[in-house]
Amino acid sequence: MNSAVANRVLTPLPFTAVKIEDIFWAPRIATNRERTLQIEYEQCRDTGRLDAFRLQWKPGQQPVPHIFWDSDVAKWVETASYTLATHPNPVLDQLLDGIIAQIAAAQQPDGYLNTHFTQVEPEKRWTNLRDWHELYCAGHLIEAAIAHYQATGKRSLLDVLCRYADYIATVFGRGEGQKRGYPGHEEIELALVKLYHVTQEEKYLLLAQYFIDERGQQPYYYDQEALARGEDPATFFQKTYSYMQADRPVRELSEVAGHAVRAMYLYSGMADMAGETGDIELMSACNRLWDDLNQHKLYLTGGLGPSRHNEGFTFNYDLPNETAYAETCAAVGLIFWAQRMLQFRCDGRYADVMEKALYNGALAGVSLDGERFFYENPLASLGSHHRQPWFDCACCPPNIARLLASLGGYVYSYNENEIAVHLYVQGNGQFQIHGQPVTLHQATEYPWDGKVSLTIESPTAVDMTLKLRIPGWCQMAKAYVNGRVVDMQGAVQSGYLSLQRTWQPNDKVELTLDMSVQRIYARPDVRADAGKVALQRGPILYCIEEADNPISLTYLRLPKEGKFSIRFERGLLGGVVTLRAEGQAALIEDWGKQLYRTQPSTPRPYRFTAVPYYAWDNREPGQMTVWIQEA
Amino acid sequence: MNSAVANRVLTPLPFTAVKIEDIFWAPRIATNRERTLQIEYEQCRDTGRLDAFRLQWKPGQQPVPHIFWDSDVAKWVETASYTLATHPNPVLDQLLDGIIAQIAAAQQPDGYLNTHFTQVEPEKRWTNLRDWHELYCAGHLIEAAIAHYQATGKRSLLDVLCRYADYIATVFGRGEGQKRGYPGHEEIELALVKLYHVTQEEKYLLLAQYFIDERGQQPYYYDQEALARGEDPATFFQKTYSYMQADRPVRELSEVAGHAVRAMYLYSGMADMAGETGDIELMSACNRLWDDLNQHKLYLTGGLGPSRHNEGFTFNYDLPNETAYAETCAAVGLIFWAQRMLQFRCDGRYADVMEKALYNGALAGVSLDGERFFYENPLASLGSHHRQPWFDCACCPPNIARLLASLGGYVYSYNENEIAVHLYVQGNGQFQIHGQPVTLHQATEYPWDGKVSLTIESPTAVDMTLKLRIPGWCQMAKAYVNGRVVDMQGAVQSGYLSLQRTWQPNDKVELTLDMSVQRIYARPDVRADAGKVALQRGPILYCIEEADNPISLTYLRLPKEGKFSIRFERGLLGGVVTLRAEGQAALIEDWGKQLYRTQPSTPRPYRFTAVPYYAWDNREPGQMTVWIQEA
Repeated sequence: MNSAVANRVLTPLPFTAVKIEDIFWAPRIATNRERTLQIEYEQCRDTGRLDAFRLQWKPGQQPVPHIFWDSDVAKWVETASYTLATHPNPVLDQLLDGIIAQIAAAQQPDGYLNTHFTQVEPEKRWTNLRDWHELYCAGHLIEAAIAHYQATGKRSLLDVLCRYADYIATVFGRGEGQKRGYPGHEEIELALVKLYHVTQEEKYLLLAQYFIDERGQQPYYYDQEALARGEDPATFFQKTYSYMQADRPVRELSEVAGHAVRAMYLYSGMADMAGETGDIELMSACNRLWDDLNQHKLYLTGGLGPSRHNEGFTFNYDLPNETAYAETCAAVGLIFWAQRMLQFRCDGRYADVMEKALYNGALAGVSLDGERFFYENPLASLGSHHRQPWFDCACCPPNIARLLASLGGYVYSYNENEIAVHLYVQGNGQFQIHGQPVTLHQATEYPWDGKVSLTIESPTAVDMTLKLRIPGWCQMAKAYVNGRVVDMQGAVQSGYLSLQRTWQPNDKVELTLDMSVQRIYARPDVRADAGKVALQRGPILYCIEEADNPISLTYLRLPKEGKFSIRFERGLLGGVVTLRAEGQAALIEDWGKQLYRTQPSTPRPYRFTAVPYYAWDNREPGQMTVWIQEA
Repeated sequence: MNSAVANRVLTPLPFTAVKIEDIFWAPRIATNRERTLQIEYEQCRDTGRLDAFRLQWKPGQQPVPHIFWDSDVAKWVETASYTLATHPNPVLDQLLDGIIAQIAAAQQPDGYLNTHFTQVEPEKRWTNLRDWHELYCAGHLIEAAIAHYQATGKRSLLDVLCRYADYIATVFGRGEGQKRGYPGHEEIELALVKLYHVTQEEKYLLLAQYFIDERGQQPYYYDQEALARGEDPATFFQKTYSYMQADRPVRELSEVAGHAVRAMYLYSGMADMAGETGDIELMSACNRLWDDLNQHKLYLTGGLGPSRHNEGFTFNYDLPNETAYAETCAAVGLIFWAQRMLQFRCDGRYADVMEKALYNGALAGVSLDGERFFYENPLASLGSHHRQPWFDCACCPPNIARLLASLGGYVYSYNENEIAVHLYVQGNGQFQIHGQPVTLHQATEYPWDGKVSLTIESPTAVDMTLKLRIPGWCQMAKAYVNGRVVDMQGAVQSGYLSLQRTWQPNDKVELTLDMSVQRIYARPDVRADAGKVALQRGPILYCIEEADNPISLTYLRLPKEGKFSIRFERGLLGGVVTLRAEGQAALIEDWGKQLYRTQPSTPRPYRFTAVPYYAWDNREPGQMTVWIQEA
């Protein structure tokens, strides 16, 4: 089952062909479009990020255009373009045109485009790929250009970025006089594969392939580059090139390591490249890395990268809760990677992770009102960790925004005779199967309810396989086709129920996914979770917040037995299902002033309430925990 | 009970009047004298610390005499002097004379004595009391001089330090032209009180009083001093003067805060000063700080200061185990402070803490062979934390050495008609009671056995009260005087059994302290210890080491019920009592490759062994934990 295949069997249905009309995502996507997009524009404007493209900066002026800045504007343009694609808006269209004109005007005669290095340190262009972010920014600008072109049909930004990519291809490569460098922060690889698809220009694919293949080769480019700067390579602040997955050639990687966002972007790019070239070695590396992440290094939230020190990975089973770094961008990057893996093998293990990160680790990154953002996503808090309106290094806010604006693209995949449903979201997807239009409608109150009703709309009958994901968290699923029960035995493989038939217009599938509350335990190697339990219902991971449980959360204990009462509360946190149960709280009164004693704490009954993890820190500040001590 | 008293009711019996002839401490003190002292001398010599006093350093030379260095040599001289006092040794005496001559020769004509500032940055003398350590080094040199004088009767170093102290008194004070400064790292306060006692020169007491009273007054001296250096005080790397207990006048302190060693040295100095001046306010502050530490911030080991960031305190109940900083010096400093508090009120709460820190948090600081040292003393380790032969900042090795060399001084206190026994250590103490010699003999195998036999040796009968500590950990104590049982009801107050009578020569007291294994629980506010239990027997805290328990220690669970088998193992770790019990270990085999699942781990029986915490990391490297998950 785990042997590498490097051929894609599915293609994601673009978000432009997907309508989301549900109670969960539709309001979030609207908030993202109406509020978050506006706020992030204002931040880019007010912090000088937009003005930086005017190239008016003079030495001594504050603020100094930063090496990250272009990427923030790029992700905003990408997000704005996605919303334009689903919600035409002439004002936004015009605003984008103006910004793009500014970006275009900042391009240098040779094609180079970077507001920091053009203005602040022109002599340092391409001199420190290891620490600076030129190719990273270029990658985000390419993604933005593609999004804008696809949304509007305008080539205004796309042409600029093609010129930049063409220039980059002259600078980097194995030819004479070229630099054998590759990005310190990966991103451009996946962007170049996208650019190849949009332009059909193979040179972009070859450039991506060069960056992927050259990465980690010896002698290390970063060593030579440091020496050329007159620096001792040993002074590199992170000590090891595994920080950026460049300690060895990527085909040899077998352990997820280093900066988590960089890792996710690289692995996504590797999967892209494997899909283009059929490169089994690359895909094998992706599979090894996937297994390593999932078996040793992934938080229950779908968050990843526990350490602030390297914004990334440490060692197996090291998953501290309070100090979890778990950057929002890393969870977003994991969604990118999972979605790519899913096209090679329609396997629930990829979709399960994609769903987990989406509903939990990534979604927690933005407040319910769309105005504040987490950079770090701990699984426990003493009450002082809160979302912020923006960050100096502002990668996360526009990353979650571009994900939400294009969320429809993660729901379905298809090929000439299959439709695969990865996520259950009310609305529809519009496919072409055997050359004829097929619309698949979903009606569901997912993630709060496990009933999903799917209807086929097509002008005539169509032979095809409908693959419905049976989530890994689901212990009992039932399905009916036109009211007739489906024998699930044998029909479910790798987490998908395959329904192959000649579908008639208005054929209906009813799927019921049991959504009992589940107690989740961590492998005993995870020392941070020893003796603890977490609660999950459907795809939603729960947490305990002080707002609902006004005691110190360290007092709480959940007995091993006991039922949960489940209630949808429309007025709470934008509408959530809460879990309530009879637990225990340590009696504190009989401790007096003692710090230690020979008697264990006396338990008293305490009825507690759990709310979805993604919704935490949207009320008064207080403690939070995902993992609860089990009595 | 808690109202402040600022009169000492007891005086410690000097270590020179105490013989330690037991199976626990005597071999350790011998190792300290024979091995540690030698090693630390070699380190001081080989690292250039001794040579620094030659004042031969030239710009550009490596190593550069460091601002801490003098204190390391001083603590070595202090330790060597203590050993000389108990074990005359002409070679060592001569070596000391040579070193002292060198130190004396380094003194400047005005009395100043500091190898760093005299050679490296003479223009910066006294310009940064906040960050540098001139007065700290001076304090340690004063302690060394006193120890040397008391051991040998020679004034060679004492005179040098008196001159230095005299000079310091001209520099600092409230007089015209004087600096209103005080040390960034406290230490000189307690040293000056000692110097006052030895010399009977009140000026030293007044200087100590000045340093204590001036501390934390506004406007802040450190602000003014920074401005004088042309620096913005806001750039202070620790942000707050509570780092060095100087954010407010010391009389107003009520929360233990900042750098733990600095705090302990200051509080010790405050207690000293209160004892000299009868200053109730100072003593009240000491009492408040004592309560705060013991109720909120003390590890079960007697270690303190959880954070590496400030080498000190954070917030109440924040006692992480794996990342505990718990510097060895802080535990040593707590022993100093506790011993001082004990002289004001013969109360077991002070002696209990003193004993706890001594047998656990401080003693762990040195390896069984006396050759390696911990700076940090975590309560759990994944196997990578080990004692080191030395440190660039080498405060801990000579601190534990000087404590062990003078350990006898912590065993007894006395006044004209009382003898108080704080620690049970086989050997004897020689007192003068009502002007006549009284020798109190102890025979015991403490800390491995709770039976203590005390015999009075005196030429004639003596009226006095013998106060025997009934440790806080002891749930049942029995005492017999000359074979007749003592009615403990009412005779035990504040943790001491008072036996008032006319003692005849050879009167014998037998004390039996129950040493059942105790399960210790932390207050539920201590989130790091939730659901966990620790094991203690007598004063000895236990830990689980991988060396005895070759599985991952996170798998272990201790059932709530169950007996311990206790065995003294002569050949193990220098001779220790081990605890063994039937516990459980999580079965790992049925987890396969899963990181999370909905079934809790399956327990299997696992018989585990616990060893004393102080003895950990003396065998092959491995995991360690003090707190064990309770099943």
